[in-house]
Amino acid sequence: MPHIIIKGASEEHVKEISKTLVKPMSEIIKCPEDHITIEYLPTVFYQNGVAGQGAYPFVNIQWFKRDEMACKQIAELFNTFFIQKKYAENAVIFTDLIPTYYFENGQHF
Amino acid sequence: MPHIIIKGASEEHVKEISKTLVKPMSEIIKCPEDHITIEYLPTVFYQNGVAGQGAYPFVNIQWFKRDEMACKQIAELFNTFFIQKKYAENAVIFTDLIPTYYFENGQHF
Amino acid sequence: MPHIIIKGASEEHVKEISKTLVKPMSEIIKCPEDHITIEYLPTVFYQNGVAGQGAYPFVNIQWFKRDEMACKQIAELFNTFFIQKKYAENAVIFTDLIPTYYFENGQHF
Repeated sequence: MPHIIIKGASEEHVKEISKTLVKPMSEIIKCPEDHITIEYLPTVFYQNGVAGQGAYPFVNIQWFKRDEMACKQIAELFNTFFIQKKYAENAVIFTDLIPTYYFENGQHF
Repeated sequence: MPHIIIKGASEEHVKEISKTLVKPMSEIIKCPEDHITIEYLPTVFYQNGVAGQGAYPFVNIQWFKRDEMACKQIAELFNTFFIQKKYAENAVIFTDLIPTYYFENGQHF
Repeated sequence: MPHIIIKGASEEHVKEISKTLVKPMSEIIKCPEDHITIEYLPTVFYQNGVAGQGAYPFVNIQWFKRDEMACKQIAELFNTFFIQKKYAENAVIFTDLIPTYYFENGQHF
């Protein structure tokens, strides 16, 4: 954890994120880099019958609750990346996981 | 937003939904049509070792909280569509997103 | 329901889970076997630019709230399975769905 799930961006860009954004994220939230997982979710957006149309990067960050500053800094990290890649817009949402509902190897937190 | 994520239906039907259900949805919730995103999530259902068995359409609608009437009307819109397409059952769930956790281009709502 | 969504494990193992773990799960939570759906979510993990690296089985169980003992027993069921399959680690999380937000065939619970 955190688990970073990305859709609506190209798989190539997700690959690049796994190389360049993990270190700054780990510094913002003060966790080891290898605790962060990055996923490309191959969902297909449709708009008016056309595949791929209406898509934009959408990042879901699932973790145990962190403060507003951490959210803001991470959202800005992704925003800067997606602007560089010429996406017209992007969304980053945060989902707080519940420790007692999160079992790692059979034991909850 | 809203984000409509559909699994367990055929991709062809999701494509059709993006052409026919967006307008009535936009009228129910009074938002521009192009604020609504439609996704086909290519998850694979398994039942007793057989791929595709046990699947039925499952729609997850992620948005900022709307009232019960809007939920009911949208669920009925999808129910009517899936009955026409001869699916034996369907499920529509709503997920309220938290504005302060939803960052659009680096800024939360 | 429950809906069992699995990522980070091989599709072959998800297929096997749909044959072997549904019966014990149905006994733990006292529901008919065919109420349980199993899904393989084909998300792609990336670590430092390499696809598949950093992945481990991650199971999301979506249902109407059950007690802690049921969570514990189901997490242990998956943990035992994934240990047998030689995965180094695994995670099982539970998500409580809200009955009034869950519409089955147009009617909420």
